[in-house]
Amino acid sequence: MTKVLVIGDGRMGTIIRELVEADESLELTGVIGIDNKDELADVTPTADVAIDFSHKSMLDLVEAYVNRTGAALVSGTTGYDEAEMGRIRALGEKAPVIYSANYSLGVAVLRRLAAEAAKALPGFDIEIVETHHNQKVDAPSGTAKLLLSAVNPDDECDVVYGREGMCGKRPAREIGVHALRGGTVAGTHTVHFFGEDEEVALTHRATSRRIFASGAVAAAKKLVEREPGFYGFDELMF
Amino acid sequence: MTKVLVIGDGRMGTIIRELVEADESLELTGVIGIDNKDELADVTPTADVAIDFSHKSMLDLVEAYVNRTGAALVSGTTGYDEAEMGRIRALGEKAPVIYSANYSLGVAVLRRLAAEAAKALPGFDIEIVETHHNQKVDAPSGTAKLLLSAVNPDDECDVVYGREGMCGKRPAREIGVHALRGGTVAGTHTVHFFGEDEEVALTHRATSRRIFASGAVAAAKKLVEREPGFYGFDELMF
Amino acid sequence: MTKVLVIGDGRMGTIIRELVEADESLELTGVIGIDNKDELADVTPTADVAIDFSHKSMLDLVEAYVNRTGAALVSGTTGYDEAEMGRIRALGEKAPVIYSANYSLGVAVLRRLAAEAAKALPGFDIEIVETHHNQKVDAPSGTAKLLLSAVNPDDECDVVYGREGMCGKRPAREIGVHALRGGTVAGTHTVHFFGEDEEVALTHRATSRRIFASGAVAAAKKLVEREPGFYGFDELMF
Amino acid sequence: MTKVLVIGDGRMGTIIRELVEADESLELTGVIGIDNKDELADVTPTADVAIDFSHKSMLDLVEAYVNRTGAALVSGTTGYDEAEMGRIRALGEKAPVIYSANYSLGVAVLRRLAAEAAKALPGFDIEIVETHHNQKVDAPSGTAKLLLSAVNPDDECDVVYGREGMCGKRPAREIGVHALRGGTVAGTHTVHFFGEDEEVALTHRATSRRIFASGAVAAAKKLVEREPGFYGFDELMF
Repeated sequence: MTKVLVIGDGRMGTIIRELVEADESLELTGVIGIDNKDELADVTPTADVAIDFSHKSMLDLVEAYVNRTGAALVSGTTGYDEAEMGRIRALGEKAPVIYSANYSLGVAVLRRLAAEAAKALPGFDIEIVETHHNQKVDAPSGTAKLLLSAVNPDDECDVVYGREGMCGKRPAREIGVHALRGGTVAGTHTVHFFGEDEEVALTHRATSRRIFASGAVAAAKKLVEREPGFYGFDELMF
Repeated sequence: MTKVLVIGDGRMGTIIRELVEADESLELTGVIGIDNKDELADVTPTADVAIDFSHKSMLDLVEAYVNRTGAALVSGTTGYDEAEMGRIRALGEKAPVIYSANYSLGVAVLRRLAAEAAKALPGFDIEIVETHHNQKVDAPSGTAKLLLSAVNPDDECDVVYGREGMCGKRPAREIGVHALRGGTVAGTHTVHFFGEDEEVALTHRATSRRIFASGAVAAAKKLVEREPGFYGFDELMF
Repeated sequence: MTKVLVIGDGRMGTIIRELVEADESLELTGVIGIDNKDELADVTPTADVAIDFSHKSMLDLVEAYVNRTGAALVSGTTGYDEAEMGRIRALGEKAPVIYSANYSLGVAVLRRLAAEAAKALPGFDIEIVETHHNQKVDAPSGTAKLLLSAVNPDDECDVVYGREGMCGKRPAREIGVHALRGGTVAGTHTVHFFGEDEEVALTHRATSRRIFASGAVAAAKKLVEREPGFYGFDELMF
Repeated sequence: MTKVLVIGDGRMGTIIRELVEADESLELTGVIGIDNKDELADVTPTADVAIDFSHKSMLDLVEAYVNRTGAALVSGTTGYDEAEMGRIRALGEKAPVIYSANYSLGVAVLRRLAAEAAKALPGFDIEIVETHHNQKVDAPSGTAKLLLSAVNPDDECDVVYGREGMCGKRPAREIGVHALRGGTVAGTHTVHFFGEDEEVALTHRATSRRIFASGAVAAAKKLVEREPGFYGFDELMF
């Protein structure tokens, strides 16, 4: 059984703890929250892997823990600046480490498939459509931007965010990105590839935030089998 | 059997002729083109209904034909100015007459269903997505505009044609209209209604222009059973 | 403000209570559960409408309450036999009453639109696709059956639940019903109408059971404006 | 410019000829039909690549042509038996050769992406949905079978073609394949992967048979850059 330490007892940490407890191949060895955070420095027992969705202010302690125990680290804590990210990466010299702002397995798969499709379908017109709830304040979504960079890796295409009026014929080197907003949609993304008389469309649909937690747990299982190093989510999962 | 005269021998007229010939409840009594157009004035035999997809320059002859024979008229000829449209409407005093720029039965159904859904789902967020081939020069499509007016009959909502950046939360009285362009898509339209934890989506997908011809033929069958008057396509079909 | 009594404190009752409390046009006057159920007989104050998602064993008390106070009744309690349903209907002589096993507004809209589309698109081939989570034990879903009866009201079409092998050409009077099962899907239903070179597709997508609760609350608001009588959900909402 | 010989003057051959003529990087050096088929043996000038959508009875001549000139061969002629297929493969010793019964680039991409997704999403429930016109006599489609083998390469899953009644919970090792039939749909295929709270769906939509022709032309362009050998369509295109 793989021993797992969960760092963070907020919304994501709580879901991750539940997933670890429900998984027969995993053993939960501890949960670190605000109240017992100092245990990371000395008391907390060695785990095979720590899953950290806590707060950037915990970085010193997380760093100390990995250095002390050599546990693998799955980090999904957000808000790190460049220097802090450098410290996370540097932990890869001591242990297998992965960092991602989005551990959804399905989104990672979609991103990878979209990149391949873009290569395999030269000359096809690409359009990206994303839908989120009506409380989201920015557009397009971060995931839509990831998908855009996946299908437009060399930044060769112009991006348009809305068409209206006499726009003229669609230029070949253009990608339309469309943000629908409505209801309580957790997140839907589709990448369309339109060719002559055919279309390939790749869709990811999320119905709750749990998918980010389960992706982190899946990453943890893969990470413990790796050598020390800093890994990307795609690299690890596929 | 209903006797049908086809006026116009261009692309649409040709398809209509084929549909009439293939329909066992219809009998083709003549086709009027450029070369024999003067027959409309005197020689052409009475038909129960004339289907006209010719040219606006034929209006004098079409008018004379309906006045002379009392045949019902299905008109899909485009480019009439207001005065000319008035003459078409006035023919309704002599015979049952219908005019539409779009005889797609499916689009008419979609428009009607969308209007009903908008009434039945108050408070739902509405977004319209249309997709057309990459040679289309304007956006959104005329059909998307029809759908927009169907779901926003009192013009109460603001329309947005693209969202980018920190747009803030979606206002309730807003409708997003999104124009995808790519490949050779003949025309796809979806009206989304997003509510709390549910969505209703109504889609029409066209794969060729033949649907406009078959809608005109279907209208002809209905029209011959009506009293003289000027009818709308929706009114006639449902 | 409309005064609302919630009967039932299970999962649905709890969601309904929350919705009533959050709605500024509604005032919650009480919640009846197992422990205080006898209050229905005498103590509970008059409300404009009672929303009942409790248990069939409560019928005597619910009946007594409506008879005593004349409150409108929205009932979503399941499991009534024919005689018990008769008693619910009979309450319509005293007060406005509605009963439904499914208060999803979106599903009701879909059902109504599907029925209209079936009439408006004669000769179109109809196929129904529903998707639910992998724990569902029956197929097709109850909602799919409702949709089937909506598009096939006179039972004229044969229903097929799977095609394999040399089936031959599709008969015109056939409706295919397809049950997808996978993951944790709360419920998606699409009715397709396929014609020559065009398709109309009507979809409902649910992402949680909350939609059944909010539909009941919406029904309550409409019901209080009605005369005594027994109403159907469709009839009330549209 | 790449010199192309088109063998076959039927429906597919005609479309291919048009595509070659319209492509500035290609030069059409000849079209072989029934009437001039013997030219293959001696007169026909060398081309860089021959695209053959003719008839199996032409095999002797096609074989002779490739042997004589060393031209690359894109073959889409159907109906070959095993021995004949062996002769096609053997031509790979003389020239670069590709054979496929389906040159749709989009379908090839979908097949490849579906295979990858199946590997990358272990434990996800897979369902395949295909839609074709109402004149198709068999189900599921050949393309659906290709997709099925792509996501189920080791034949570990049971395949179900319809669910009805009390089926019980969906077994993990099951793949549902659903054949919709209606209207004039040229061919739509979707592979769904359902996980916990998320779904990945990969769709291909064809709107005409032209896509098979353009795929063959795309293959021809790639093939002329290869060494002699017998290639698969996927192998060549990606």
